[in-house]
Amino acid sequence: MITEDTRFLIVGLGLIGGSYARGLSKKGFWVDAIDTDAASISYALENGLIRRGAARPDPALTRSADIVVFALYPTVMIGWLRQNQALFRPGTLLTDVSGVKCHVVDVIQGFLREDLEFIGSHPMAGKEVYGVRNSDEAIFRAANFIVTPTEKNTPEAVQTAREIGRLLEFRTVSELSPAAHDEIIGFVSQLTHAIAVSLMTCNEDENLQNYTGDSFRDLTRIARINEKMWSELFLLNRQELIEQIDSFTGELLRMRGMLEREDRPALEEMFIHSTRRRALFDR
Amino acid sequence: MITEDTRFLIVGLGLIGGSYARGLSKKGFWVDAIDTDAASISYALENGLIRRGAARPDPALTRSADIVVFALYPTVMIGWLRQNQALFRPGTLLTDVSGVKCHVVDVIQGFLREDLEFIGSHPMAGKEVYGVRNSDEAIFRAANFIVTPTEKNTPEAVQTAREIGRLLEFRTVSELSPAAHDEIIGFVSQLTHAIAVSLMTCNEDENLQNYTGDSFRDLTRIARINEKMWSELFLLNRQELIEQIDSFTGELLRMRGMLEREDRPALEEMFIHSTRRRALFDR
Repeated sequence: MITEDTRFLIVGLGLIGGSYARGLSKKGFWVDAIDTDAASISYALENGLIRRGAARPDPALTRSADIVVFALYPTVMIGWLRQNQALFRPGTLLTDVSGVKCHVVDVIQGFLREDLEFIGSHPMAGKEVYGVRNSDEAIFRAANFIVTPTEKNTPEAVQTAREIGRLLEFRTVSELSPAAHDEIIGFVSQLTHAIAVSLMTCNEDENLQNYTGDSFRDLTRIARINEKMWSELFLLNRQELIEQIDSFTGELLRMRGMLEREDRPALEEMFIHSTRRRALFDR
Repeated sequence: MITEDTRFLIVGLGLIGGSYARGLSKKGFWVDAIDTDAASISYALENGLIRRGAARPDPALTRSADIVVFALYPTVMIGWLRQNQALFRPGTLLTDVSGVKCHVVDVIQGFLREDLEFIGSHPMAGKEVYGVRNSDEAIFRAANFIVTPTEKNTPEAVQTAREIGRLLEFRTVSELSPAAHDEIIGFVSQLTHAIAVSLMTCNEDENLQNYTGDSFRDLTRIARINEKMWSELFLLNRQELIEQIDSFTGELLRMRGMLEREDRPALEEMFIHSTRRRALFDR
């Protein structure tokens, strides 16, 4: 349960960590933060995003936290926790913001102290800019928040994780198993980024930008991509992403077959099907 | 040369034909229109888009036109012209709005009367709605206008076609050979629609819409598609589109290889390259 006295600690004060800090502070909660970048901490202190900050794991902060949100790259978070889990008070609830879940949840729940609890969360929000200076809790309002419990989680932890999503005013808050999460994310997020990147790199014509319409711009907006974060997310979910690439490529090659044999009725049927499916997504 | 006395005839009064009529009438030109749908003609007359209209090829309209813009599906336009080219005055300039050029220009310039001239144009604009009632000349302002002359065209016709693009206030007006046009369009427009459709039809999970973020919505916005028009455009440009599908699929499978062998440096390099290329497209 989250009460007005609940204290949050954000570990990793980038765009998402900063937006959590901003949103939770605006709701009146006590928020502390740890980030190796002292300038990010100073900025957050000066702008009222946090009450206290530290550039390294500081027991004064870790021991007063009721809920800790890790907003680090998955592998960095795992390393941080392996090294520093002794610093938390028994009963502290830990959660994260990672875009992949099976690996993260499995590894952390595997080595975590018995008197701590980790529950996976994925705020499906972002921006094409980075860092706490660009943080903005408004990015959560049109976005989905997914909690990924396992049989190691308590019902209380699931409720608390969902409550964080509601406090931050996400459009929807839902639950999925880590495996179902990674399958869906492999499709709606990772495959789309893989497509946008490939579209951007498969043609080296320097004059293309003079002839592009909205459709090309739409499909490649997300081709500006943080290479460190996304290569990590892709590799941690690579089996799923490979399956999604195969399924999508199979469908595109099915269309290629229709073109080869000039099968107009099949093309029209595929377009009608696509139009009908896409209509479900317009909100 | 276009003067204030130049009379336009639009054949096909849908979204694009209607937007031409609206834009040219607002500039003070005399605009007539022919469309088999009498309701579209009535609407255009009542709303001041055109001076005169007819539901069939009417010599009174065809013979007074200096410039005729065909805003029909390519195959319909070709059929219309084969049947009705006798109705035009010698010296009339004909142009179109088709999204594919080699086939259209080649066929029409092949059978056209010697005393008429056809020059291809492609206004790269559209909307997800149809018909003259949705017409709006503002859709041209952010868009590119491409003229596709061949050695059969006169410099005067090229200038006039470019002038139409400027009168309608397109963002850019440029020239490409029909073959170069179809190659670029095969990439920036047809391949992107093929991808959006395949993305929409390769996964039948009915719950997806609860978990999609902006990226999936961006990549599939154009998956709502007019099946008659797009199957025609795809088939008329199928060799080029097949090559573009192969080139794109090859790139996506190159990424798949990086995932399989867990080649993080190669992934990062691909993402950096994509980010740099995409930055050129932000206007």
